[in-house]
Amino acid sequence: MPRLILVRHGQSQWNLENRFTGWWDVDLTAQGEAEAIAAGQLLAEKGVLPTVAFTSIQTRAIRTLHFALEAAGRLWIPETKDWRLNERHYGGLTGLDKAETAARHGDEQVKIWRRSFDIPPPVLEAGSQYDLGGDARYAGIAIPNTESLKDTIARVLPYYEAAIAPELRAGETVLIAAHGNSLRALVKHLSNIADADITGLEIPTGQPIVFELDENLVALERYYLSER
Amino acid sequence: MPRLILVRHGQSQWNLENRFTGWWDVDLTAQGEAEAIAAGQLLAEKGVLPTVAFTSIQTRAIRTLHFALEAAGRLWIPETKDWRLNERHYGGLTGLDKAETAARHGDEQVKIWRRSFDIPPPVLEAGSQYDLGGDARYAGIAIPNTESLKDTIARVLPYYEAAIAPELRAGETVLIAAHGNSLRALVKHLSNIADADITGLEIPTGQPIVFELDENLVALERYYLSER
Repeated sequence: MPRLILVRHGQSQWNLENRFTGWWDVDLTAQGEAEAIAAGQLLAEKGVLPTVAFTSIQTRAIRTLHFALEAAGRLWIPETKDWRLNERHYGGLTGLDKAETAARHGDEQVKIWRRSFDIPPPVLEAGSQYDLGGDARYAGIAIPNTESLKDTIARVLPYYEAAIAPELRAGETVLIAAHGNSLRALVKHLSNIADADITGLEIPTGQPIVFELDENLVALERYYLSER
Repeated sequence: MPRLILVRHGQSQWNLENRFTGWWDVDLTAQGEAEAIAAGQLLAEKGVLPTVAFTSIQTRAIRTLHFALEAAGRLWIPETKDWRLNERHYGGLTGLDKAETAARHGDEQVKIWRRSFDIPPPVLEAGSQYDLGGDARYAGIAIPNTESLKDTIARVLPYYEAAIAPELRAGETVLIAAHGNSLRALVKHLSNIADADITGLEIPTGQPIVFELDENLVALERYYLSER
């Protein structure tokens, strides 16, 4: 039966500094690398071996995938990178740490943005230091200037249906190395989580989450691989 | 105009030990990793930036690709792994070092195998410690039990025509991270090198070789990027 494994990238430098990252291309810390390797070792130990992999076009997710595949002895499986698996775009919050955000926008407003399903943060101004318009990886892609979780889901799920679901239906064991919010989109879809509840669901870094699916890709079970 | 960049993987443990490797999955040494990183830095310095990448399904080539892409700031480009870019299969010589090979087969015979275009080494016996029949990466693939350079070319070139040439025709800058003999196959084809001459052509590790091609993929120029 099809099996889907989700792994959120290991700690990045801005996770460590508690800054909103979104589409900004921040790399893993040494701890983040170690988390990715441990995730791959766990896949090997438990014999849950991916046969096909997907990731975003952000360095921290791609490197997490590569470290995990290498540790699992699976570096040779096909991998596809796509921007639709990118992290949620945090708009004008990009680069701000917790204190800066609270000082600029107030604690209450920040809570609203963090918890809301469909209210996006303020837009990232064109020409900001975090403007990705000049980044070759996004050539030809309509770069958002902010996203709610709902907006993120609206690009993740069509990609899942078009590119990932066919692999699952063909019986592949699919590994997706991605980001807190692009993975939330998938968990929400597969576990039927309500809009009001999904923003509260934490996806831990470097912890493989396994979905056992039936042939119609309905989730029979969802679990942390470390708990099996 | 289309551009093709070839990079032979950095030093592997068995390059260092002077053993025939072929399809056996030997990893890079620390020096091999450094060579791959230097190759990527050179691509960035010279502004020769790949937009699409191909590699074999052997760890040393895949890791060379990843180190080089990361150093070039191009980890996000699409990559395709295919067994047809694997190293030449050295049959029964796999695992032997220079001295063992000479002792077992005689210097003259070894020279013949090394220099010959179409004489394959003895076959790898089934059940040998280097038999890849149980390796999941080769499931569904008719694993050769030995290959001449001619045999290697006979699987590399159809793959080049089917998968790589269309990318070049579409104007992509293609990077191929692969092996001495799978790259020889491509150099022979693009530079029209005679059967008798190609086995003498050395492809150095970690040195990007650039082909400038016309729209019909005829090579206008071939050079080491380090010399520009």
